[in-house]
Amino acid sequence: MKSKHDHWQYLFAPHLVALIGASNTPGSWGYGIMRHLLVAKKRRIYPVNPSASEVLGVPAYDSVLGIPGSVDLAVIAVSAPQVLMVMRQCVQKGVGAAVVISGGFAETGEQGKKLEAELVKVAREGGIRFIGPNSMGHLNNFSRLSTLAWTGQVTPGPVALISQSGNFGHRIMNNGMKSGFGFSKSVSTGNEADLRLEDYLEYLAQDPETRVITAYIEGLREGRRFFQLARETTISKPIVAIKAGGTSESARAARSHTGTLAGSDAVYAAAFKQAGVIRVEDDDELADVVAVLLHQPLPRGNRVGIVTVGGGLGVMAAEATEREGLEVAHLTPSTLKKLDALLPPRWSHGNPVDTAGVHMTENSVIFPCLWALMADDNVDAILFQAAVGLSTRRLSRTFNSEEIKTFREEEENSLALLGQRIAEYSKPVLMVAPSVEFTADPEVSSIFHREGIPIYHNPRRAARVLRHLAWYKRYLDARA
Amino acid sequence: MKSKHDHWQYLFAPHLVALIGASNTPGSWGYGIMRHLLVAKKRRIYPVNPSASEVLGVPAYDSVLGIPGSVDLAVIAVSAPQVLMVMRQCVQKGVGAAVVISGGFAETGEQGKKLEAELVKVAREGGIRFIGPNSMGHLNNFSRLSTLAWTGQVTPGPVALISQSGNFGHRIMNNGMKSGFGFSKSVSTGNEADLRLEDYLEYLAQDPETRVITAYIEGLREGRRFFQLARETTISKPIVAIKAGGTSESARAARSHTGTLAGSDAVYAAAFKQAGVIRVEDDDELADVVAVLLHQPLPRGNRVGIVTVGGGLGVMAAEATEREGLEVAHLTPSTLKKLDALLPPRWSHGNPVDTAGVHMTENSVIFPCLWALMADDNVDAILFQAAVGLSTRRLSRTFNSEEIKTFREEEENSLALLGQRIAEYSKPVLMVAPSVEFTADPEVSSIFHREGIPIYHNPRRAARVLRHLAWYKRYLDARA
Repeated sequence: MKSKHDHWQYLFAPHLVALIGASNTPGSWGYGIMRHLLVAKKRRIYPVNPSASEVLGVPAYDSVLGIPGSVDLAVIAVSAPQVLMVMRQCVQKGVGAAVVISGGFAETGEQGKKLEAELVKVAREGGIRFIGPNSMGHLNNFSRLSTLAWTGQVTPGPVALISQSGNFGHRIMNNGMKSGFGFSKSVSTGNEADLRLEDYLEYLAQDPETRVITAYIEGLREGRRFFQLARETTISKPIVAIKAGGTSESARAARSHTGTLAGSDAVYAAAFKQAGVIRVEDDDELADVVAVLLHQPLPRGNRVGIVTVGGGLGVMAAEATEREGLEVAHLTPSTLKKLDALLPPRWSHGNPVDTAGVHMTENSVIFPCLWALMADDNVDAILFQAAVGLSTRRLSRTFNSEEIKTFREEEENSLALLGQRIAEYSKPVLMVAPSVEFTADPEVSSIFHREGIPIYHNPRRAARVLRHLAWYKRYLDARA
Repeated sequence: MKSKHDHWQYLFAPHLVALIGASNTPGSWGYGIMRHLLVAKKRRIYPVNPSASEVLGVPAYDSVLGIPGSVDLAVIAVSAPQVLMVMRQCVQKGVGAAVVISGGFAETGEQGKKLEAELVKVAREGGIRFIGPNSMGHLNNFSRLSTLAWTGQVTPGPVALISQSGNFGHRIMNNGMKSGFGFSKSVSTGNEADLRLEDYLEYLAQDPETRVITAYIEGLREGRRFFQLARETTISKPIVAIKAGGTSESARAARSHTGTLAGSDAVYAAAFKQAGVIRVEDDDELADVVAVLLHQPLPRGNRVGIVTVGGGLGVMAAEATEREGLEVAHLTPSTLKKLDALLPPRWSHGNPVDTAGVHMTENSVIFPCLWALMADDNVDAILFQAAVGLSTRRLSRTFNSEEIKTFREEEENSLALLGQRIAEYSKPVLMVAPSVEFTADPEVSSIFHREGIPIYHNPRRAARVLRHLAWYKRYLDARA
C-alpha cells in the first residue's frame, strides 16, 4: 500500500524510471530527457519506444507493461492522443508516480480540457499522482535526477524552484547559477492537472535540502491554501516569487499559456505582503535577492551606509537608496573622526563616504573606511565600492608585479575579514561594481560568490535588494 | 589672434601638448595621462617635471616656459597650490587651452572656492579657456587624443559623452562599449570653473563626428541655456541624459561632489521633456537606448508585437510592455492566418505570439513569424526572442555537425534579411534573450552588435527602450 507521502519519494528520488517516448533523435524531447536520466549511473532507466530496440545504448521496451519488475517513476513524453493509454498502462503496472511532459491538453482549448480531465480521472483512480501535463520536467540535484530536456547541468545548491513556465524556469536557474548559487529541486508545473503549485510548496517547505524557495507564478488555483502555507513557511524559510500577468494583456496571455486566472495584481500584492513572500519583478531581481539571503544577515533597519570611490557613484547610490524607500544613514561623530584620520582632507565628510581622490586600488585605505561604517550604530547595511577582483592585466596598468602580489594578499585578507565582520555586526554588505568591467568578468564575480558577497552592476539593483531584506526583517520581527 | 572658436581646436585636436605634472610613477595621474598621450605618434608631447630628465622616454622640461615653440594644449596635473602658478606660466607662454586635472578647488570648501576664482581670473585675463579643475580628463577618438588617466582604450564611434563625474563617465563608456558602440569625444567636466556643460553641448551639437550626445548631469549652472540648446539639438541629434541627485540626500551629495545645485527633480523632468531629451535612470539604460538609436528607426507608434519561444516569456514581455505604457498590438486577421499556416495548431492565436512547442532553434519557423508581424499594420515595433547566436557547444546538444552548418547559414541569412526589413518597414526589432546564456556570452552579443540589433537580457529593459523611442518619435512629430 502506498502511503500519502510516497509519491514525493517516487517523484523526486525514484530508483527505477521508465521514459515513455524515449528517442534516439537529437533535438527531440525523448532524447534530451534520456540523456539527462542516464547521468545517474546507479538508477535503472527503462526507455520505452516500440520502434527502437535500444535508446542511447539502453535496451528499449515496447510498453511500460513489458518492463520487468516495478517502476517508481514514469516520464511520459509521447504525443497527446497517446498519453491516456500510457497512463492506463502505468496504472496497470502499478507505477509509483508520473511526470507528463506531453503538451496538447487544457492549454489548447475545449477538447484538450476534456482529455486532461480524463487523464486526471484515470490517474486518480489508479492512485498515481503526477506532474504536468505540459511540464518541461523536474529536477532533484541531491538524487541526481533530471527530466529537464532543455536545461543543461544545474549546479546543486540550497535553492528550490517552482515554475509555472518551463522556459522561465530555465531562465531562473541559469541566472541563479551565474549569480553563484545552485538548486536543490525544481519543477515545471505545467498545467497542474493533478499536483499543483501549492502541493510543491508544501513539499519544499519540509525539504531539508532547501533553504530558500523561489517561484514563478502566473495564477494560483488554491490561493487561500498557498498564502496559508507561505505564511507558515516564511517564518523559517524565505520565499522569493515572481508574479506575472499583472496587466490586462499579460493576464490574457497567462490564461492562454497555463489556463490560470492571473487575478487582481493588488490582491496578490497584499496577500504576498501578509504572507511574508518577497515579491520580485523578474529573474534578475530574484537572483539578486536570493544571493544575499543565502549568505548574509538581514539588516536590523533601513539606514544605509555608502562607501564609494567616485563622487558620481556616491550620488547615484544615495539616489538609489532613497528611491527604494531606504535612508541614507547619518554617521556618528566618532565614525566621522575615524574617517578624517583615514582620508585626505577633501573627502565628503559625510555619507556617502566619497574617498575623494584615494585611488580605487588603495584597499588599505578603503577597507578601513568600510570597517568604520560597519561599527557605526547608525548604519544597518552597506553599499560598498572597491576595486576588489581587478584582473592582473588591469592592475598592471598601475602596479609592478611585486605590488600586484601585495595587492592580491591584501585583497584576500580584506575579503576574509569582511566575511567575519558581516557575521559579527550582523550587517549585510553589498558590493557595487565601480564599472561594468567587474561584473562582466566571470573571474571577478567568482571571487565574490566564493565569499558570499554578491556584486551588483548598479546601485539601484543593490538598493532594491536591501529594500527587500529590510522589509522581510520587519515582517519577521512583527511576527516574532 | 585666437578666434572665438579656436579653443575647441586646441582642446580637442591639438598638435602640441604639454603635460605639467608628467610622472614616471605607475599609479599616478601624471603617469596614466602620459601613457595615453603617447598613443598618437604624430602629436608632440612635452612632459613637464622639474625633477625628471625624461618621462617614459620623452625629454622633460622644468616648466612650460622652457618648451621650445608653441603649445596648443596644457594638461595640468600638479597639486592644487601649484596650479595657479602653472596657469600663469601657460598665459605667459601663450598656450592655446588647458585641462586642469588637479582637484582641491571649489569642491573642498571656502578656501578652494577662492583659489578657483583666482584661477578663472588668471586664465580669462590670459585668454585661456579650460576644462576643470577636478576633471578626470577628456577624449577625442578622431584625433587620437586622451587625457583620461584611468580609462583604457575607448572604441571610436559616433557617441559623445559629457560627464559631471569622471568615474561615472568611465562607467558609461565601458558599458557603451560592452553594448557594442564607441565614442567620438568625451569630457569629464570637473568643477566647470570656466567651460561648462552647456559649452560642451553647444560644441558637440555641431560636431559632425557625433550622432548621439550622452550626458551625466548632477546640476546645471545655466539651465535656461542648456534647455534652449538641447531643444535646438534634439531635432536632429538625440540627447540621452542621466540626471542624478533627484532625492534630498543625493542632492546633498552632489553639492559636495561638484558644487552644483541639483534642483527640483520635477522641474528637470518637465524641462527635459520639453527639450526632447531622453532621460534615463542609469548607465545600463543609457547604453540600452543609445544602441538602438544608432542602428534602428524610431517606431511610428506604441503598439508592440511580441514573438516568444516560451509562454512564460510571452507573459513577462506583455506585462513589461504594458507597465512601460505601451500597447500589446492586436494582430490583423491576415497576420493570424499567416501564423496559423506557420505554427502548430496550439500556438497562442494572438499577441504575444507564443510558438508553443516549436523548438527554439527552429529559426526556419520562428523568423517567418517575425516577418508576418513586421508586415502587420497594427504593429509599430517588435520584441523578438529566438535562439540566434547559440554557441556551437550548445547546438551540439541538439544537432550534428552537418545540421549545425545549416543552422548557421540560416541564422546568417535571417539576420541579414532582418536588417533589410527593419529598414524597409521602418519598425525597430529588439531581441530579448531567451536566457542569461545569450547575453553573458560576448560572442553572441557581438553577432547582434555587428547587425545593429541590440539584445536585451530581460523584456522590461527592452520595453523601456521602446517607450523612450516611441516618446521621442511623438516629440519629433509634434515639432515637425
